[in-house]
Parts: sequence; C-alpha cells; structure tokens
Amino acid sequence: MPVKGRVTIEDVAAAAGTSMISVSRAFRDPARLSPDLRARIERAAAALGYVPDRAASALASARSMNVAVLVPSITNMVFVEMLAGIDEVLSPERYQIIMATTNYCPMEEERQLRGLLAFRPDGVLLTGIDHLPGTLNLLKTPALPVVQMMELCGRAGSYSVGFSQEDGGAAIARHFAGHGYERTGFVAAQLDPRTLARGAGFRRALKEAGLDAPYELMVPDRSSVALGAALLDRVLAECPDIEAVFFCNDDLAQGALFHCQRRRIAVPQQLAIAGFNDLPASAWTVPALSTVATPRYEIGRKSAAMLLDLMCGRAPEAARLDLGFTLHARESS
Amino acid sequence: MPVKGRVTIEDVAAAAGTSMISVSRAFRDPARLSPDLRARIERAAAALGYVPDRAASALASARSMNVAVLVPSITNMVFVEMLAGIDEVLSPERYQIIMATTNYCPMEEERQLRGLLAFRPDGVLLTGIDHLPGTLNLLKTPALPVVQMMELCGRAGSYSVGFSQEDGGAAIARHFAGHGYERTGFVAAQLDPRTLARGAGFRRALKEAGLDAPYELMVPDRSSVALGAALLDRVLAECPDIEAVFFCNDDLAQGALFHCQRRRIAVPQQLAIAGFNDLPASAWTVPALSTVATPRYEIGRKSAAMLLDLMCGRAPEAARLDLGFTLHARESS
Repeated sequence: MPVKGRVTIEDVAAAAGTSMISVSRAFRDPARLSPDLRARIERAAAALGYVPDRAASALASARSMNVAVLVPSITNMVFVEMLAGIDEVLSPERYQIIMATTNYCPMEEERQLRGLLAFRPDGVLLTGIDHLPGTLNLLKTPALPVVQMMELCGRAGSYSVGFSQEDGGAAIARHFAGHGYERTGFVAAQLDPRTLARGAGFRRALKEAGLDAPYELMVPDRSSVALGAALLDRVLAECPDIEAVFFCNDDLAQGALFHCQRRRIAVPQQLAIAGFNDLPASAWTVPALSTVATPRYEIGRKSAAMLLDLMCGRAPEAARLDLGFTLHARESS
Repeated sequence: MPVKGRVTIEDVAAAAGTSMISVSRAFRDPARLSPDLRARIERAAAALGYVPDRAASALASARSMNVAVLVPSITNMVFVEMLAGIDEVLSPERYQIIMATTNYCPMEEERQLRGLLAFRPDGVLLTGIDHLPGTLNLLKTPALPVVQMMELCGRAGSYSVGFSQEDGGAAIARHFAGHGYERTGFVAAQLDPRTLARGAGFRRALKEAGLDAPYELMVPDRSSVALGAALLDRVLAECPDIEAVFFCNDDLAQGALFHCQRRRIAVPQQLAIAGFNDLPASAWTVPALSTVATPRYEIGRKSAAMLLDLMCGRAPEAARLDLGFTLHARESS
C-alpha cells in the first residue's frame, strides 16, 4: 500500500504547538506530561487521525507491547473464555494480543509460533504442557517469558497455571461409584492431551473404587453436539447394558442428552450422563447436566498476570498455580 | 526485554554459507531462490531458531502483512465462525490477523481501531455498517482498504459482505403467519443494530400479513441460554395468551425451550418458539429449534477475499455482496 497521506508525529506536534518528543511521550509515557498538554496533543492527534507507529516504536524501544497467545481452537468456548480473561488483564496495560490457533496439532503450534515470533512479542502464552522440541527451541532464542495454561507443568524453569485434568476425570469416576453405577463408559473426541488425562484419571479412580474398567469409545473427530448424539447410538449398540457414561466434554454430553430424549431413554434412570467443563447451557438442559466446572476465565487472568510479572522482570508468586475445579452433580447422573 | 542473544540475518547467512540478501529473500520472496539454496537457508534458520523481524520488515517495505479485524465479541459463536472463514483465506496468503473485540460498543470500536492502526495494517475488516465519525475518520488517513461484514452498506465507495438482517426477521414473521399464529412476540437482548434490524423486519412483515403488532421485550443484557429462560418467565407473566415468540438469537431461544420443558409447557402446541442464526445445537434440541441459518463462515471468507483484492489493487467483482440466509422451519414452531 502507498503510504502517502500518512499523518506523522511532526504534523501532530505542529497542530498542538509543542515538540515531537512531547507527542511521542503522550503516547508512550503519558504520566510524564501535564494534563493540559496531554489533552491538547490528544485533540490534535484525534483531529488529524494520527496513530503512533508500533513498528517504528518497537524497533526504537526493543519492546513491542505484543503478547503472543496460542490456543487450540476458538470454536471451543473454553478457550474463548480463557482469552477473555487474558484480555482483561493485558488490555489495560496496553499490550496487544496477537493470537493464533493450533487446531490441537503440535506441528501447527510450532508453525504458528514461528509466525507470531516475527512480531517480536514481549511474552508468550501457550495452551497445555506438551510441545515439540522445535517449539521449545524457538522460545529459547532469545529467552522469552512463557506461561503455559490449562495444565500444571513440572519442568524446571517453567511457568504454568491450570488444574489437574486427571483429577477432574477421577472426580467423575468417584461420583459414578458413589451412586452405585457399575457398568461405566468413557466417550471422547478430539483426543488432545487434556482429554486423554481425563480418561486416565477416570480409569484410575474406577479401579481404586473396585469397579471394572470402563467401556471406551474414542474418536479423533472434532467435538460437537451432533457428534455426541451419533456416539450415543454407537455406545448403546456396542454396550446395551451400560449404566453411566462420562463424555470428555459438555458438548458431546449435551448431544447425548438430547438424543436420549429423542430415543425416549430416561436420564438418569436408564442411563446416567456426565460431561466436563460446565458450558453455559449445561445448567439449563433438561435434565440439567452433571459436569466438572473448570476455571478457564480465571486461568486466563492468572496466566496473564504471571506473564506480566515475568515481562517486567518481577518474580511471580509461584511458578505453578493450581486453580482446581468443581464437581457439579446435577440431575443427569 | 533485553535483546541479547537474538539470532540475526547475518548469523543465518553465515551458517548457510550465503549472502544476507538471499536469507532475506528466502523469507519474503522464496520463489526467487533455487530450491537447494532455500532448503539450506531454512535448515540453518531452523537450527538457530531464527525468525524474521516483522517490525523491521514492515518499515522497509511499507507493507505490514497484518490485517486488523474488529468483532463485537468472541463469546458469540457467530463471530468466531466468521473469524474462521477470514483466517482460512488470509492465512495461506501469509497475512497475520490482529483482532480486537468492541463489546458491541461504537466508542470501544473507535478506541480499539486506533490501537490496531498502530500496527499499520494493510487492510481492515469491520463488523456492521454503523460506525462513529471518528472511526470513519481514522480509516481515511491514509486511505485504507476496508470491508464491512454481516450487513449490506449503501454508502458510495464502501465495501460490504452480508445479508439483509431485516429480511431475516421478516421471514420469521411470515412463517408465524403461515402457521396461523396471531398473538406473537419479539424478545431481544444485546440490542446491537443487527438485532434491531431483525425486529424491524419482523414488525413490518406482521403488518403486511394483517396481524397485530407483536408484544415486545427488549433488554440490553448480554445474550445467553440462562437469560432466555429468565425472559420466557417475563413473557408468560406479562402476556399469558401469547402463541409464538421470535427470540432475536438461538441462545435465548434454546434457553426458552429448555425452560418450557421444565415448566411443562408444550412446544409448539402451547407456545411456538423461533430463534436466529442456527447455532450448532439448535438442530439437536428436543423439539428441534426453528431458526434462520446465517452464512457467517462464508461471510468471513468472502469479506477476506474482497479485502485481498483491495489490498492488491484489484477491483472486487462487487462492492456489495449479498449472501442471503435460509429459514429452517423445524419442530418448535
């Protein structure tokens, strides 16, 4: 694009009757100006349509005021709420979030991270704790502040905010055992590390409760309400005497719930259903869905706050912050 | 952040045994290099963890390869799907999307746009056709390619991709009239211009069909399944003989549907319900929800393609692209 007509810092200084350095300060360090001068500069800038140039300013200061955020997907509401939490903390500090989605694929994560690093972010927020060596290598040169979200990481020198996905799965198993369900199932889609950890926790806690291993149905497809309905048919065809099914997340569980209603299968009398994450509709379906509520909004907030500490050279209170989860035993189980 | 340890273009050139200009070309114009040389440079860059510097490259070329995207909210799945369509077109062209949310507020749109313009985007995608003068002024200096999404704009020199929100509302009214419902209602939240246009179309078409004006309940709150349930209670308290309600979007309608089930109100026999947008769960609720399916994914794709034309100096096929909508008359009405 041609750049002719671009309003410069000189234009604003002339219109406001002040120096270029004052205009520059008005945008980068406004507290150092008098309120009068700042207001005059802001009026002049608004009238001319001036905006400061991030690229020039990044080269001049070696700070870009960008934060790179990598999430698996933004059609999964869990990550959207995490992003809202991140934004709430970083936006007032004048950081710009530059985001990319990895589609739950470690190779795509590495590719997208390489693209985002070209913007010279001051810090990086990654989802999960499983990354390719190439991804970790990109973050070493130069050493960039990084916080991992949604899971807890044991690696030395790493920072993470999340909860034990495995313990979340175990909580569902103990809930099923407490209600006397004996023939259980685990149904999962989009088999990312967090989903697999929930399954592992579910299996472990069933065993600890002296119950049989669950029937399992795991497919790599993208999770959705429609898929939940389809998987319910497969569960009932392959395992007609099943009593209680743990779906790895709420959209699958909601789809199964609706489909039971359509097939006139009484929930929980004929089949108990539980999900994971507590999506907004889950408290409202009939019957209301039993699920594990996860603090993704708070994970976003606390991860951003931890990253802010690291970017400012402050030591965070903890390198590993466990925000826990809450089992909501509702009507469906 | 200190920049020591940053891998430079010189380091990569030395490791690959070539010139700095070849390394630069490998990242900005790879087609001009032999496959052998390109592979050698890519291996050296990967081994060193080198990434090109967008800020330096933006200053050098006067192209940033950024596109600024403004959406009202990313907790509304409609805009998330639009973003996915945008990304599908721009990502292979090596554009980076820099996004901000406006929270349905025109002043916030102007503020966020000013922030994004500091990144010197090569083009801008805006949601809707109602913008403050200050927003339009920011886009004039310098003249930036802009495409507006979700609605159709009649302003000269403007570009837009969407459909008639008003005709969508009218389609629901004609559907209700065709089923003989006489006492209708319009229930809306988050009263953005598109929501209001749906209501205007609904009113207009009821009148054209010779029906009474609808009962109306409009609240500024954020739309949600929970709010839909709460608003249903208010509708029935204020207007107990109502026969059919158009909820301005599917999450409100789903909440109302679940709540009818809980209150043992037969849908559609005692109350018909319709929504708008066709969210993923709406085909699966019991009864399945009548709604207007909107092509937001395609709107994202076509808007990005139109912007790409403008950014490359090509004339788009049309300045105003109407992608229409589809009425799905399902079980709830």
